[in-house]
Amino acid sequence: MNYPKGIKNSNTKTYINYGNRGMGLEEDLNLTNQYYVDKGIAFIYKKPTPIQVTKVDYKNNSIIIKEAYFKEPSTTDYNGLYKKMYIDFEAKETTSKTSFPLSNIHKHQIVHLNRIIENGGIGFLIVRFTSLDRNYILMGKDLMAFLKDSDRKSIPLEYFEKNGYLIDISYMPRIDYLKVIDKIIGGNNGNN
Amino acid sequence: MNYPKGIKNSNTKTYINYGNRGMGLEEDLNLTNQYYVDKGIAFIYKKPTPIQVTKVDYKNNSIIIKEAYFKEPSTTDYNGLYKKMYIDFEAKETTSKTSFPLSNIHKHQIVHLNRIIENGGIGFLIVRFTSLDRNYILMGKDLMAFLKDSDRKSIPLEYFEKNGYLIDISYMPRIDYLKVIDKIIGGNNGNN
Repeated sequence: MNYPKGIKNSNTKTYINYGNRGMGLEEDLNLTNQYYVDKGIAFIYKKPTPIQVTKVDYKNNSIIIKEAYFKEPSTTDYNGLYKKMYIDFEAKETTSKTSFPLSNIHKHQIVHLNRIIENGGIGFLIVRFTSLDRNYILMGKDLMAFLKDSDRKSIPLEYFEKNGYLIDISYMPRIDYLKVIDKIIGGNNGNN
Repeated sequence: MNYPKGIKNSNTKTYINYGNRGMGLEEDLNLTNQYYVDKGIAFIYKKPTPIQVTKVDYKNNSIIIKEAYFKEPSTTDYNGLYKKMYIDFEAKETTSKTSFPLSNIHKHQIVHLNRIIENGGIGFLIVRFTSLDRNYILMGKDLMAFLKDSDRKSIPLEYFEKNGYLIDISYMPRIDYLKVIDKIIGGNNGNN
């Protein structure tokens, strides 16, 4: 039987949200973004996961997707508005204690972040080193500088320590990344 | 046989992109947005269609979605950056010659547009009356004013004529809606 709203196991394994392996960080960000909305601080939200639909059925006037594939993301996961500024970021977790593998970021997402910056938006990464219990903001320009200067397949932790910004973890909001963004842009609220 | 990249017919009908019945307007907007990117004018892009995945298979290390449903959209279709401003809009077509049915816009999308406006972004609708060959911009505040003052289930054409802004159709870009936005905000490029 089909239960349209439930998640069913198929003949093999339980469904895992492939687009976001790190549910911890995603959950923290969702709670933080909800806090921002509730307090009227900002409106930042997660985009849908891009999916390529290849086969559908029509049943009782509704559409059921019978075959589809996760697409490589062409944009970042989160965007929105803070003090009239366009905010745009990708959030990733790594279990590594020494570096952040660049395989986590797709080429199209780099292009996307570059366009955000070129058009005057605030683009960055939030990277959680789960083993170290640390969350860093790495601004788009610092990511681009690394990619330009290095052929490495991962960004070493030292690069985050030197060029990134630690986000405090607290109860509410969980990870107050906009407080950090405020400090980084230093009173320049995008209105210059 | 499965051909992962192709679109297959199931036992009933060919797949139609349910999220965007009006392919004409969507295509025009995609071309227009590409023009804006190519000319370095703006970076505005379409969000993925939200899909609820309920069943997947794992085959040769890849994931095939075997059951999923189109979700009611909680955001608008398009957003991006123009002159540092946050741009956010929903685009719809209607074949009606007299009014735009509000059933085209979901409740969550109204909430979304309200939050965009509250946080200092530029939120609006683009509505194409296909039978009249006219495209209107209706700014978020004028949409909200209509919803507040009226119990009607559609917005009459006269309301667009009075409160909306016609977009010229040209060869390139197809529908230069940012030119209209420029006029509407009248030199206020969001930096006040």
